[in-house]
Amino acid sequence: MTDGARPSEFALIAQLFAPLATTPGAYGLTDDAATVAPAPGHELVVTADALVEGVHFLKDDPPDAIARKSLRVNLSDLAAKGAQPLGYLLVLSLPSSVSFDWIMSFASGLALDQKEFGISLLGGDTTATPGPLTIAITAFGQTQAGAMIKRSGAKQGDLVYVTGTIGDAGAGLALLRGEKDGFTGLDRDHLVSRYRLPQPRVDFGRALRGTATAALDVSDGLIADLGHIAAASNVRILIDAPSLPLSTSFKALWGRDVVRAATAGDDYEIAFTVPPAAASGLQMASAKYRLSINRIGRVERGAGVVLLDADRQEIAVPKSGFTHF
Amino acid sequence: MTDGARPSEFALIAQLFAPLATTPGAYGLTDDAATVAPAPGHELVVTADALVEGVHFLKDDPPDAIARKSLRVNLSDLAAKGAQPLGYLLVLSLPSSVSFDWIMSFASGLALDQKEFGISLLGGDTTATPGPLTIAITAFGQTQAGAMIKRSGAKQGDLVYVTGTIGDAGAGLALLRGEKDGFTGLDRDHLVSRYRLPQPRVDFGRALRGTATAALDVSDGLIADLGHIAAASNVRILIDAPSLPLSTSFKALWGRDVVRAATAGDDYEIAFTVPPAAASGLQMASAKYRLSINRIGRVERGAGVVLLDADRQEIAVPKSGFTHF
Repeated sequence: MTDGARPSEFALIAQLFAPLATTPGAYGLTDDAATVAPAPGHELVVTADALVEGVHFLKDDPPDAIARKSLRVNLSDLAAKGAQPLGYLLVLSLPSSVSFDWIMSFASGLALDQKEFGISLLGGDTTATPGPLTIAITAFGQTQAGAMIKRSGAKQGDLVYVTGTIGDAGAGLALLRGEKDGFTGLDRDHLVSRYRLPQPRVDFGRALRGTATAALDVSDGLIADLGHIAAASNVRILIDAPSLPLSTSFKALWGRDVVRAATAGDDYEIAFTVPPAAASGLQMASAKYRLSINRIGRVERGAGVVLLDADRQEIAVPKSGFTHF
Repeated sequence: MTDGARPSEFALIAQLFAPLATTPGAYGLTDDAATVAPAPGHELVVTADALVEGVHFLKDDPPDAIARKSLRVNLSDLAAKGAQPLGYLLVLSLPSSVSFDWIMSFASGLALDQKEFGISLLGGDTTATPGPLTIAITAFGQTQAGAMIKRSGAKQGDLVYVTGTIGDAGAGLALLRGEKDGFTGLDRDHLVSRYRLPQPRVDFGRALRGTATAALDVSDGLIADLGHIAAASNVRILIDAPSLPLSTSFKALWGRDVVRAATAGDDYEIAFTVPPAAASGLQMASAKYRLSINRIGRVERGAGVVLLDADRQEIAVPKSGFTHF
């Protein structure tokens, strides 16, 4: 079939990506498939996420940042499941308008994060498209067999925690869209970088294995995501709004707007539930990995997610987050 | 971020896809990740391929056929590697013009092939796109550890074989594009179905483990694909043009146009090399799985692929196949 392919350019792309295939099972990207084996007693944890230009990233975002974000949203899923990342498959659909320099910068972003997270490119596919640049990544991690932290284990009486701060990435996106003129300086830089470069909480996620009863990464917005845990676990989650961790940069921009923070997407922090007895162990892990954690609520009988103010009154939430899929 | 999402429709899609997640490790598509473990002593074989509307399939192709082809091009890679398919991740980028009925038919195609190949949907991602419908699938199979058939093992003196017939799918595509008016009837139907519905040679591929020194599926065109084996194995491959297996339907359309057959894409047959001593075992496997095979050439010292006529003279090949990536 004709696919508007640019053979010589695709050959150059292969040259850019082959050095990223550092694991023997990738066969230097010269075969049709890769081989992956979990360590003895372990199983693979696999996840896939696509990023589409104009939908999940902005056309003018730096290509290395787009590459790292594409990888990191997948690594964040693995982190929240308690899995150690191993590698990934990359499927790139490239419009003809994408320059070779763009792809070179994209590959350099992947190289940086491969080093940071100790992972290898395993293979994938490159194709032409008449539409927007689309990046689909399948990430592979491993846990001991049966140790993946699911959404479905939250129990009545558990405490609810979240790592880091929430709402920053949503604030960064709002700034990039020009929703608040004249907000410049370090706070702006911080919020924009939180949008562009998520920090998968890999080490902390692994520390949650055997402790957390349920976990996921906050990508659709805290309330929407805790709603996934509530639904899968058949419980009700109460969030204590005054406990929500907001960064000073977020507060400089929006004040203590908890609803905005709890419905913004792209945080890529880990929200999780633990039995009360596990709380002290959490503080040790938090100190060890220099990652702040905050207790933000509790699990009850019932269904759904409720945001409560300091007087234990329900705060109305007009939309529960970014409801893509 | 806004993604033009249609939440209620996406929820319906989830309902269509959840019944396809038949393996426990898919968690009914209610979690962020799936778990996969190869059998003891085995390893996973993984591959990813994307299909883009207007590039890899035609807008008016039936949606169930598109689904099955998307799955089968990946299963064909596994088959040629000697791997037993286990499951797949599906990443769907959907333009708003795609109707719910279209997606329902798409899911029914997946259901059919899951049954045929004994596999389960494991997870994936659904997102909106302003561009063409794009389907990215990552397929998982397994072989005994170290048993994957690679491209790189062909040796001087090996014989070259191909399963089935070649050129049919390319002929089917030419007909769909209206390149030959007035060619109708059963021959047309056969060629079009060969284009729309590849037959991954899974059983035969498994039988090649331990026998074939190199193998791949013919997707870019026989000459181009044998070129991949020649390059990876550092050998030269001679193809005996009179031995190329052409279907009666192909010959009815194009005559014995071997160059056209050997440079058409989308065959999804297995091309492979074996030591001469293995030839008799091949015939048994061919009979057992009712799949014709033909010896089409041999492996020599050197580089590249040469097509020879009955007088052992080289046939000029203007382009060596579909050189996408």
